[in-house]
Amino acid sequence: MSVGAIKVGIIGASGYTGADAVRLLATHPHVHIGVLTGNAHAGKKIGEIFPQFAGLDLPALVKVEDADWSDIDAVICGLPHSTAQDVILNLPKHLKVIDMSADFRLQDADVYAQWYGRSHEAPALLKGAVYGLSEHYGAAIAEADLVACPGCYPTAALTLLLPLVKAGLIDASDLIIDAKSGVTGAGRSLKEQNLFSEVAEGMHAYGVAGHRHAPEIEQEITKANGAPVTVSFTPHLVPMNRGEYLSVYAKTKNNATAADLRAAWQAFYADKPFVRVVEAGVVPATRHVRGSNFCLLAAFDDRIDGRVILFSTLDNLVKGSSGQAIQNLNLMFGFDEMAGLQQQPLFP
Amino acid sequence: MSVGAIKVGIIGASGYTGADAVRLLATHPHVHIGVLTGNAHAGKKIGEIFPQFAGLDLPALVKVEDADWSDIDAVICGLPHSTAQDVILNLPKHLKVIDMSADFRLQDADVYAQWYGRSHEAPALLKGAVYGLSEHYGAAIAEADLVACPGCYPTAALTLLLPLVKAGLIDASDLIIDAKSGVTGAGRSLKEQNLFSEVAEGMHAYGVAGHRHAPEIEQEITKANGAPVTVSFTPHLVPMNRGEYLSVYAKTKNNATAADLRAAWQAFYADKPFVRVVEAGVVPATRHVRGSNFCLLAAFDDRIDGRVILFSTLDNLVKGSSGQAIQNLNLMFGFDEMAGLQQQPLFP
Amino acid sequence: MSVGAIKVGIIGASGYTGADAVRLLATHPHVHIGVLTGNAHAGKKIGEIFPQFAGLDLPALVKVEDADWSDIDAVICGLPHSTAQDVILNLPKHLKVIDMSADFRLQDADVYAQWYGRSHEAPALLKGAVYGLSEHYGAAIAEADLVACPGCYPTAALTLLLPLVKAGLIDASDLIIDAKSGVTGAGRSLKEQNLFSEVAEGMHAYGVAGHRHAPEIEQEITKANGAPVTVSFTPHLVPMNRGEYLSVYAKTKNNATAADLRAAWQAFYADKPFVRVVEAGVVPATRHVRGSNFCLLAAFDDRIDGRVILFSTLDNLVKGSSGQAIQNLNLMFGFDEMAGLQQQPLFP
Amino acid sequence: MSVGAIKVGIIGASGYTGADAVRLLATHPHVHIGVLTGNAHAGKKIGEIFPQFAGLDLPALVKVEDADWSDIDAVICGLPHSTAQDVILNLPKHLKVIDMSADFRLQDADVYAQWYGRSHEAPALLKGAVYGLSEHYGAAIAEADLVACPGCYPTAALTLLLPLVKAGLIDASDLIIDAKSGVTGAGRSLKEQNLFSEVAEGMHAYGVAGHRHAPEIEQEITKANGAPVTVSFTPHLVPMNRGEYLSVYAKTKNNATAADLRAAWQAFYADKPFVRVVEAGVVPATRHVRGSNFCLLAAFDDRIDGRVILFSTLDNLVKGSSGQAIQNLNLMFGFDEMAGLQQQPLFP
Repeated sequence: MSVGAIKVGIIGASGYTGADAVRLLATHPHVHIGVLTGNAHAGKKIGEIFPQFAGLDLPALVKVEDADWSDIDAVICGLPHSTAQDVILNLPKHLKVIDMSADFRLQDADVYAQWYGRSHEAPALLKGAVYGLSEHYGAAIAEADLVACPGCYPTAALTLLLPLVKAGLIDASDLIIDAKSGVTGAGRSLKEQNLFSEVAEGMHAYGVAGHRHAPEIEQEITKANGAPVTVSFTPHLVPMNRGEYLSVYAKTKNNATAADLRAAWQAFYADKPFVRVVEAGVVPATRHVRGSNFCLLAAFDDRIDGRVILFSTLDNLVKGSSGQAIQNLNLMFGFDEMAGLQQQPLFP
Repeated sequence: MSVGAIKVGIIGASGYTGADAVRLLATHPHVHIGVLTGNAHAGKKIGEIFPQFAGLDLPALVKVEDADWSDIDAVICGLPHSTAQDVILNLPKHLKVIDMSADFRLQDADVYAQWYGRSHEAPALLKGAVYGLSEHYGAAIAEADLVACPGCYPTAALTLLLPLVKAGLIDASDLIIDAKSGVTGAGRSLKEQNLFSEVAEGMHAYGVAGHRHAPEIEQEITKANGAPVTVSFTPHLVPMNRGEYLSVYAKTKNNATAADLRAAWQAFYADKPFVRVVEAGVVPATRHVRGSNFCLLAAFDDRIDGRVILFSTLDNLVKGSSGQAIQNLNLMFGFDEMAGLQQQPLFP
Repeated sequence: MSVGAIKVGIIGASGYTGADAVRLLATHPHVHIGVLTGNAHAGKKIGEIFPQFAGLDLPALVKVEDADWSDIDAVICGLPHSTAQDVILNLPKHLKVIDMSADFRLQDADVYAQWYGRSHEAPALLKGAVYGLSEHYGAAIAEADLVACPGCYPTAALTLLLPLVKAGLIDASDLIIDAKSGVTGAGRSLKEQNLFSEVAEGMHAYGVAGHRHAPEIEQEITKANGAPVTVSFTPHLVPMNRGEYLSVYAKTKNNATAADLRAAWQAFYADKPFVRVVEAGVVPATRHVRGSNFCLLAAFDDRIDGRVILFSTLDNLVKGSSGQAIQNLNLMFGFDEMAGLQQQPLFP
Repeated sequence: MSVGAIKVGIIGASGYTGADAVRLLATHPHVHIGVLTGNAHAGKKIGEIFPQFAGLDLPALVKVEDADWSDIDAVICGLPHSTAQDVILNLPKHLKVIDMSADFRLQDADVYAQWYGRSHEAPALLKGAVYGLSEHYGAAIAEADLVACPGCYPTAALTLLLPLVKAGLIDASDLIIDAKSGVTGAGRSLKEQNLFSEVAEGMHAYGVAGHRHAPEIEQEITKANGAPVTVSFTPHLVPMNRGEYLSVYAKTKNNATAADLRAAWQAFYADKPFVRVVEAGVVPATRHVRGSNFCLLAAFDDRIDGRVILFSTLDNLVKGSSGQAIQNLNLMFGFDEMAGLQQQPLFP
């Protein structure tokens, strides 16, 4: 444990986002993992759940109610949606909380209730939560006690869209987002549709006109746009473990071209190490971000006049979840934004 | 060889579309394979090129110029784009020709020259060629001497779009086609981007705003629409062997809903065995057509008023290529349209 | 329904082996599917469980106890191990039964009890059951009322080994079988280890020194050998849907070489259409049998004197399960052995 | 560039092993990449060849003959077999060389000539080369000017076998090695057999009784055994990018059991951070080492008396190539053995 290091707990360490938090924190220069919770596996070592960690010196899994938080500085919460809010509500107040679930993302409790089919259990906490899109809300994140990390699709969509909407370069009322994701986006839960033989050698759309990441994207675009926005958002499941790829079809305003959009991104993200605008004419690929915290952006003029084709890609478990959580942790504790996140992409 | 059978030659049998023609014709009740050409492999048995056929009794591969066409009734041509036209120009005139390349699809030789960067070598043949979208041009195909099978993407796109444009249900001027394909769409040629390690565990767009299937789609939509149409068409490469999945984003006209679109398809394809409209609310998947000649269609109302989300899926090597070629062969020779094409999809 | 056709019921049609039986029987010239059972899905159409069949005219799923067997001639049972025996015990006696589970494969009830951890519920039926390795027990199968289809691994192993052991060409006391299987071998049940993200982009052994297919292989090798045999059998899980690949390491007897072994196979399988010895020097691949009922065999001399390296490959859902079941059905009803099984392999 | 850092050149940086060296060295605390060569791509940036590196500050690719070696301390050579020796022969003598090709692995020039079909061009260098199996030849590596990194299969095989042979626990005269590899083992060269559609959804053996890694394994086992050894070695290609999995079938000596073998490994590798013996009863998997420099070992008693089933798994591009190269670099320059190699495995 290095000088100046903090102690972090991971709640829900037996899921894929929890595991990726462990993977990344294992080499973080300023963080020591002090608590790991996993209710279904309490008493086991993390190496029994994720054998790749069997050689690491880590605490055994405990039930969240049995954890000793006394010397922990912050928690990263990887619980499923709807279960996180109750757990977070009952955590000691000295803990900084970075939540990777959807529970604190929708800032209007009524919108939350409408999309999640239940009323929010912690509306007071919800009021103080900061939306953890690191490159856009960095200052607020640095001061926050509770950060709600964006969903994987919203991270990819908003990183692409927000600078363009804010700059008035695209028409926010006609945004079509065709999204593709690897299977880890569905987590480690036992569902027939996630079996290898149901997914390999094929693809399909899902959640058509009803995916819960749509209102999250709309909340943020609406803020940037200054008027309510509904987006067309259609996710697809692709036979790969990691990676998210968004193809966004938009109309430009004021004769803006792809080059103008690229310039707007470059200006906005000039000092942001994890967002990179690829060179003009280059098409990004999920495999060029695999395992890393990078998000790549690209813009092309369409053959239809006034239309552009935009791409955003990231690793759903890293920049789309655990990596951004750690990036936010770095912002909250004043560490270098890249600490623990310097892994280069794994390709092939 | 059954009574009333015809003899068919396959030109370019060493590619994937050629192989799939062999696979399907091997159990066709009215077809005997009489000639197989493959210039780079002349003299070899097809089982040396495609070991799965080593047990079949088939003629050895010959160079196309060495083939004996005297007792052959029809040829299916699986040569690459640009090389097919010269070969077909020099075939004996008694042969019915079903071409799977792009050479005779674009009916305007100028458009061909613009997209393929060379002038057409057989403009007279081009004039007489029939666009082989089986369900839409069946009568003309039945009478044709030369049928140009549509590209895989155009088959999926036009099967979805033509009935809707003709019925005036959607706005042809604002069509966004996000297409995803398995890797066999790129054929068996040696290119770095088709290596396993470049493709597996990832995905990306390609041919952005410049794919040659766009003008083919536009040619047919323009005819149906009665006014020139440009479409937004963006293909993506997905890590699977077979399958194509089109997500089409359209605005409806006259307050039409997804239900209206489904009804239009059902009316149009009522007696077409290979096109199936899936039940309302069901999302189709590529794996539900794998290895078969089926094309599945689905329509959903978007959350944006007046917008619909449409899906079309097929196996690019079957309905997108060799299967449709055989379907056209059946139409040309008066066989049952499903002859040789009754395989059920292979899932898992 | 063709003249002379029989009516067949499929018990457990909602699993992968059941689905593959439906796929193959859908084009069988002498079989009509009269009953489909699936207890968890009773009342649903098969197209809701397996969307690829939504266009077929098939009976709805019923509970097995609600099925009307009165005009059914034979059943193919695709239930899980241990549950099949009770169901089969209670079927009407006029039904010919082809069981794809493990329940009637081990002919010694004590061996069954030892490996399956429970006593056999139908020992009288077990006595009369015929081991359904089609090429080896064809005469007995033709007369049988109950056929126990071999496991997928035993089918691949025994097709390779039996002719060699019988001919005294290899040493049965030192057989090492390294087996690799696609994921459908594990069925459609919900287990974490079968999730896409647990299986894709990796491989591992499983069931080391304890897989239940070992005693089945030993039972048959022992019969052929005339003295008890224990084999070394180690299965591995490979990230593909279908396919089984066995690499067998053996010592030859009497200076036999790979060429001698190939000759023995060719003699034994001369009139067996589904077993094919590939040409000397050719290495078979699972993809060359995918979706088909073929089994490919190959033999190589090792660099160690007196050792050979042998390969056997088949599709675990076809020759390893449903295809062999239908092959046995054909034998039992005097149909052409290849009826319904003429699909060529699907590659790519 | 940190204090005390060295400058390293990578020859052949446009291949997969070169890319993985770049990936790992990018976060190495004591290494600065000073030269990158790639003859076919001279003048390009590495980010044009491997887009995942487009954001890194790295030198442009040059031809090897144009490289400025004056301030470089060491080179890692990722050239193909047979081309490395000539290039290395002509490098300035002040450079420490770590070669990842096969050119300097076989210490007997005659054996080299027999397996590679050409005489060795640099026999004098060959004499001084040290076989770079880090855990076994660490002292010699530390002093070496030229290190020949073992092949990926030999690394996995020898890490498993050497301690057991040296301890007299297994019979070296009857070793059967069934090896499985991901596709990156074949490099980035354009060969039909490495196309996605030739490899995905299937598997097969290759190089049967003739793979060039066999003599390399035999060279080292023979040294440990004290008498010449021939091994049975059969590699298989599995549809995954990375990972190697060896299943070794051996006879024990002196009634040794799997537990004894595990104990021997634990003793031998007690202070070796990259080799880990998994807990008794646990089966390792390639995905538990993916992207990392770890090698996992496991031992099971077989059901055949006196036989054991042994497993070794590693990432062929890391511990099987670039990672071990960097481990050797660390040994040669006195750095912490784990420097630059602390990435945890990427699973899923």
